[in-house]
Amino acid sequence: MIDLRSDTVTKPTPAMRKAMAEAEVGDDVWGDDPTVHRLQELAAAVVGKEAAIFVPSGTMGNLSAVLAHCHERGSEVIVGDESHIFQYEADGVSVLGGVGMHTVPTADNGELPLAALNKAVRADDQHCPRTSLVCIENTHNRCGGCVLSLEYMQSLKTWADDLGLPIHLDGARVFNAAVALGVDVKAITGLVTSVQFCLSKGLGAPVGSIVAGPKPFIHRVHRLRKMLGGGMRQVGVLAAPGLLSLTDMTKRLQQDHDNAWVLAKGLAACPHIDIRTDLVHTNIVCFDLRKSAPLSAKDFILVLQQRDVYVIPFRGGIRAVTHYDVTSKQCQKALEVILAVLNEPSQHIKLPGKCAMGNGTPLVGPEAPTVNGY
Amino acid sequence: MIDLRSDTVTKPTPAMRKAMAEAEVGDDVWGDDPTVHRLQELAAAVVGKEAAIFVPSGTMGNLSAVLAHCHERGSEVIVGDESHIFQYEADGVSVLGGVGMHTVPTADNGELPLAALNKAVRADDQHCPRTSLVCIENTHNRCGGCVLSLEYMQSLKTWADDLGLPIHLDGARVFNAAVALGVDVKAITGLVTSVQFCLSKGLGAPVGSIVAGPKPFIHRVHRLRKMLGGGMRQVGVLAAPGLLSLTDMTKRLQQDHDNAWVLAKGLAACPHIDIRTDLVHTNIVCFDLRKSAPLSAKDFILVLQQRDVYVIPFRGGIRAVTHYDVTSKQCQKALEVILAVLNEPSQHIKLPGKCAMGNGTPLVGPEAPTVNGY
Amino acid sequence: MIDLRSDTVTKPTPAMRKAMAEAEVGDDVWGDDPTVHRLQELAAAVVGKEAAIFVPSGTMGNLSAVLAHCHERGSEVIVGDESHIFQYEADGVSVLGGVGMHTVPTADNGELPLAALNKAVRADDQHCPRTSLVCIENTHNRCGGCVLSLEYMQSLKTWADDLGLPIHLDGARVFNAAVALGVDVKAITGLVTSVQFCLSKGLGAPVGSIVAGPKPFIHRVHRLRKMLGGGMRQVGVLAAPGLLSLTDMTKRLQQDHDNAWVLAKGLAACPHIDIRTDLVHTNIVCFDLRKSAPLSAKDFILVLQQRDVYVIPFRGGIRAVTHYDVTSKQCQKALEVILAVLNEPSQHIKLPGKCAMGNGTPLVGPEAPTVNGY
Amino acid sequence: MIDLRSDTVTKPTPAMRKAMAEAEVGDDVWGDDPTVHRLQELAAAVVGKEAAIFVPSGTMGNLSAVLAHCHERGSEVIVGDESHIFQYEADGVSVLGGVGMHTVPTADNGELPLAALNKAVRADDQHCPRTSLVCIENTHNRCGGCVLSLEYMQSLKTWADDLGLPIHLDGARVFNAAVALGVDVKAITGLVTSVQFCLSKGLGAPVGSIVAGPKPFIHRVHRLRKMLGGGMRQVGVLAAPGLLSLTDMTKRLQQDHDNAWVLAKGLAACPHIDIRTDLVHTNIVCFDLRKSAPLSAKDFILVLQQRDVYVIPFRGGIRAVTHYDVTSKQCQKALEVILAVLNEPSQHIKLPGKCAMGNGTPLVGPEAPTVNGY
Repeated sequence: MIDLRSDTVTKPTPAMRKAMAEAEVGDDVWGDDPTVHRLQELAAAVVGKEAAIFVPSGTMGNLSAVLAHCHERGSEVIVGDESHIFQYEADGVSVLGGVGMHTVPTADNGELPLAALNKAVRADDQHCPRTSLVCIENTHNRCGGCVLSLEYMQSLKTWADDLGLPIHLDGARVFNAAVALGVDVKAITGLVTSVQFCLSKGLGAPVGSIVAGPKPFIHRVHRLRKMLGGGMRQVGVLAAPGLLSLTDMTKRLQQDHDNAWVLAKGLAACPHIDIRTDLVHTNIVCFDLRKSAPLSAKDFILVLQQRDVYVIPFRGGIRAVTHYDVTSKQCQKALEVILAVLNEPSQHIKLPGKCAMGNGTPLVGPEAPTVNGY
Repeated sequence: MIDLRSDTVTKPTPAMRKAMAEAEVGDDVWGDDPTVHRLQELAAAVVGKEAAIFVPSGTMGNLSAVLAHCHERGSEVIVGDESHIFQYEADGVSVLGGVGMHTVPTADNGELPLAALNKAVRADDQHCPRTSLVCIENTHNRCGGCVLSLEYMQSLKTWADDLGLPIHLDGARVFNAAVALGVDVKAITGLVTSVQFCLSKGLGAPVGSIVAGPKPFIHRVHRLRKMLGGGMRQVGVLAAPGLLSLTDMTKRLQQDHDNAWVLAKGLAACPHIDIRTDLVHTNIVCFDLRKSAPLSAKDFILVLQQRDVYVIPFRGGIRAVTHYDVTSKQCQKALEVILAVLNEPSQHIKLPGKCAMGNGTPLVGPEAPTVNGY
Repeated sequence: MIDLRSDTVTKPTPAMRKAMAEAEVGDDVWGDDPTVHRLQELAAAVVGKEAAIFVPSGTMGNLSAVLAHCHERGSEVIVGDESHIFQYEADGVSVLGGVGMHTVPTADNGELPLAALNKAVRADDQHCPRTSLVCIENTHNRCGGCVLSLEYMQSLKTWADDLGLPIHLDGARVFNAAVALGVDVKAITGLVTSVQFCLSKGLGAPVGSIVAGPKPFIHRVHRLRKMLGGGMRQVGVLAAPGLLSLTDMTKRLQQDHDNAWVLAKGLAACPHIDIRTDLVHTNIVCFDLRKSAPLSAKDFILVLQQRDVYVIPFRGGIRAVTHYDVTSKQCQKALEVILAVLNEPSQHIKLPGKCAMGNGTPLVGPEAPTVNGY
Repeated sequence: MIDLRSDTVTKPTPAMRKAMAEAEVGDDVWGDDPTVHRLQELAAAVVGKEAAIFVPSGTMGNLSAVLAHCHERGSEVIVGDESHIFQYEADGVSVLGGVGMHTVPTADNGELPLAALNKAVRADDQHCPRTSLVCIENTHNRCGGCVLSLEYMQSLKTWADDLGLPIHLDGARVFNAAVALGVDVKAITGLVTSVQFCLSKGLGAPVGSIVAGPKPFIHRVHRLRKMLGGGMRQVGVLAAPGLLSLTDMTKRLQQDHDNAWVLAKGLAACPHIDIRTDLVHTNIVCFDLRKSAPLSAKDFILVLQQRDVYVIPFRGGIRAVTHYDVTSKQCQKALEVILAVLNEPSQHIKLPGKCAMGNGTPLVGPEAPTVNGY
């Protein structure tokens, strides 16, 4: 099985498993876990922030960060309409935090145009909430993993600074962005007030994300983490592999990008496929089937699955993500399978009645998970 | 002074003042006020709904209606990005009710295109809130008072029924819509699940709005009204003029529309003015100044104010609203003043240092109210 | 009919009706209503606060005041377990505002003992919300209208000042307290940070309450009022009778207290009645029926109602409230009816099958309103 | 160091570390982790419920369970005033979920008396929230780890069933309760609708808790877990030690209880100590210093810490908790140290200027964590 559904499926490496088993731990709710302290200090240093905190998921990282910035009742956050926060986090900031989300249209390249942001800033008036935060996403998942340019981010920072607005970066895959730009990640995170990034996904840790930012902000996040139920005990067992994510796994992301690029170029050569290779910057490859294709996107995914290649339906098309647990050779193989299916005469393709994952969840069809985030 | 800022400025008529003074009243929290009962029964009948309830404002009407439809945690409401609910109600449904707002782009004519609505409906997935309601606005304030066609509303209803989604109509000025369409208001309200409409505004009552809909829904609104602090005592004093709004004032809205049309046509003839007369359907007239105009929109508003004509800045341009307290003659006069200012050589126009309303609040400038709803 | 259910049932006086009919009004959302401005200025002066704002109900007054004090997420308010805020306001501060309520046991005389308050103050710890406010109630409804002493209030203020905690006074009937203590109301309100008081109830206005406090606090309340839907238009029609409440009606409360005292003393003389006359300080008279009484409290209320005397079930017993619309003679008459019923042999008393108010709502029984606030 | 602060400090056993390192994992957000599935199935079976779900903490378990029961806006939950949910979970159910908490006084033995519960049930009235849930805690932390009798729990169930109210059990240490009662845990959990229990604490897992209950309820908890940010990826690494908690560690709790009993009896023999041994049922030992003691509780804790025995300040006294990482011998040693300190003449006792944990957090004093939950 070649699993290109997401980089979230990466399993802990042997070194990570060893680190877990040997981790020095303590009760982190009491502040006693030395490994999580080491991770938090390293994480803060790596992204160039005053402080950092471990959280069990990217969703809790973004949620607690937005609520920490929007700590007064009546706040509103500006987010992209294609952002993970708006699309895949169950409206948590509104439902649990009472924070309004003001969406602005996301450009194809993941940018939130300044003109749209300007329009979204609220007047200081009793009819309006208070605009309190802007969120961006880099790399941008639903924009196919594309990377925000430093120029854009600098212009956003200038704009936000003028208005006194903080910027939160959903940097679930910010290390992929840094690799793609060929810069230290601090060149990106230095342009925002706070950042969330995932130790799982491309960095391979089994569980966890980091929120980093100014000390008083992290203090708020810490209290929110407890309230949300993200305060855990011997967290060192998760922090230990997370340390390896930061020290070792960040160095190997280029390979995922190379694999994605090979896949993208191969797909682009197929006449039945529509793909914007100009937006393939990192480890995500999104594409659509043309009308000339012998089968629909949904059926296509089912047939691939029958042939042990797993991709997911995504924004009407298909998404494949490269990661640590898929080799270059496997990517090459996946490409071959894809092209083979599309080159078969449609009458030769047998559709599985119902094709399911190992756990019985069908990938497409009425019972399938219909949304596939991160 | 010719006050075209909004139809919310209408003062109670002599008949309304008499009705207030003579109203038969009781404690409505105990259910004892006969006049508010009469109003609620009449209102329900007029819009063809099972039940209706009086609320102190359109904002509370919309807020309690949205919360009543979205009574389960994790609900999301689809609203237009130019809707009053999203623009001018302080994000109350999110801040107070924890309901996410999913905005879709509003067409120039106030419609929310079905394609956009389709895209906004959430999958049944743990990553997503539950889509629970669609809100529309008719007439549409920020779209210049334009009227949604019955065809559009019917197509929306068919779409929503298919999905099992209720529709709430922000019908703050729904009687203006009915008059413009030449139909009984029930032809409009029959196409939605619930409606809020204002007794103040064009219908002239000093205070209050109505929410109408199915009985179990109104029961929820009733409890929410109490929780929000909208349960009042001898409400008959407000219901009595509200009865006159429904019985008498609905009949005279055509005159406001006629006045608005004269104003709009006059403005359209001016080369310095940009106006979409095709969207002037009711009592609202929105227009922009062209670059050829001798002064900016902000200065223009100030100079008009000096000459006793009051309009407001609106979406980068200017809004004027006709209503009961402005006669046809006054509208004609306002038009003349406007054209005169725009035809003066700019060097002749004296700008007031700071021009304020009677209560000292400047209409434009840094201290001015920057948003002007309903 | 002698209606002793509550002082909320008072109807506007002829002078109030005249004032409504003649009120100078404007659109208060635009800040244009001169009468509401006059009321707000007078109200602030009367209670000795920087600013005041009109709200449609005591519930909205308390809700917006608590939310204004607790403007940061994670706040907790300390309230009495018998307070109106906790008992009769639908948990609005928690449900709508996400503010935790920390109840402390209320003493018989309405006081919240300092020892209990001390225990309720939260540690500054991630496991805890932040204690942000203490609320008291004076006069205290569920404690039979009793009055908090100035000594108690001073000791509370000293305690709260030490902790930097603001105090909000639910002073729905604070003018009754001032009359009972024989002091200017400022002697009471000077000991708290903010106060809500009702213009309806004993002061006779048809609708409305006032929140008063420091300017920045009132600014927050103003924005919350809009969000909650309490921003109204030509509010002068309600402010005009409210002005009379403050200028005229505050002077006549002693008469209600005298009537209540006569009633209480008369009841105390009846062997079937249990009453704590030491807690009858103002216009509320609460009492219980002894086991010797010929009928239950519920049946007693039904029989009284048949004989045109209206009282309500209250904390297992019975509550009667004197007010402007009940004369001394009527109170005397009510006392006679009460005593007559209790002195009848039980077999002579005919129970109505179902005895309802004019509006069809039964006062007791399964369909009756079971809670009767304010 | 003998660490009696809490059983939360237990570190994973060698078997647990091995299990983590070897765990078969998958992405649990996609439903792909076989180990967490095994744990959830076993957990449901062990407590006799339809379904179970893993959550990162007891706080998230209780929070998501309460919100799942109280899924409609306007709900209220009845909790004990000494319950963990009310005391140590940051008011999350109110702050994040808008659920009002209605506290009732907790008896010394951890019971919520039915009379108090009856009083707390709300009328079906617009003035009131809806009573939607009752929470109990067994064993009861702040009542010294005492166990609710099955008779009490049965009477509570009968009462709740009559009212149609579900019961949620905060069973953080419910296996300790089962051991103390000498019953299968299902004898306890069969009397409630849902239960949360911790795999950490006495059961020794590094991280995690379980919520169990009816399938539709667990479905709600699952969605809430995602919204709160508790959806994690390769959770098998935490589920694997959790399985050992259930299969192995539940069998050894008697030893912790025996150790606690020895400690309690030893303390009871000291004239300077006040202890209710009748409430020492499990692994928690709470006691107070009498006035005759040579030093205050705070100083006592500091001095013990200097001598390598760690206990915490708790409800004005002192709490010690036995667990897997403290042997019988160490408990004996701790007892000797305690008695030795109390038998020293006060002038001989040297107070450390500031005594801190390894991580620099002082245990007592102004910078100390002032609340110590679970």
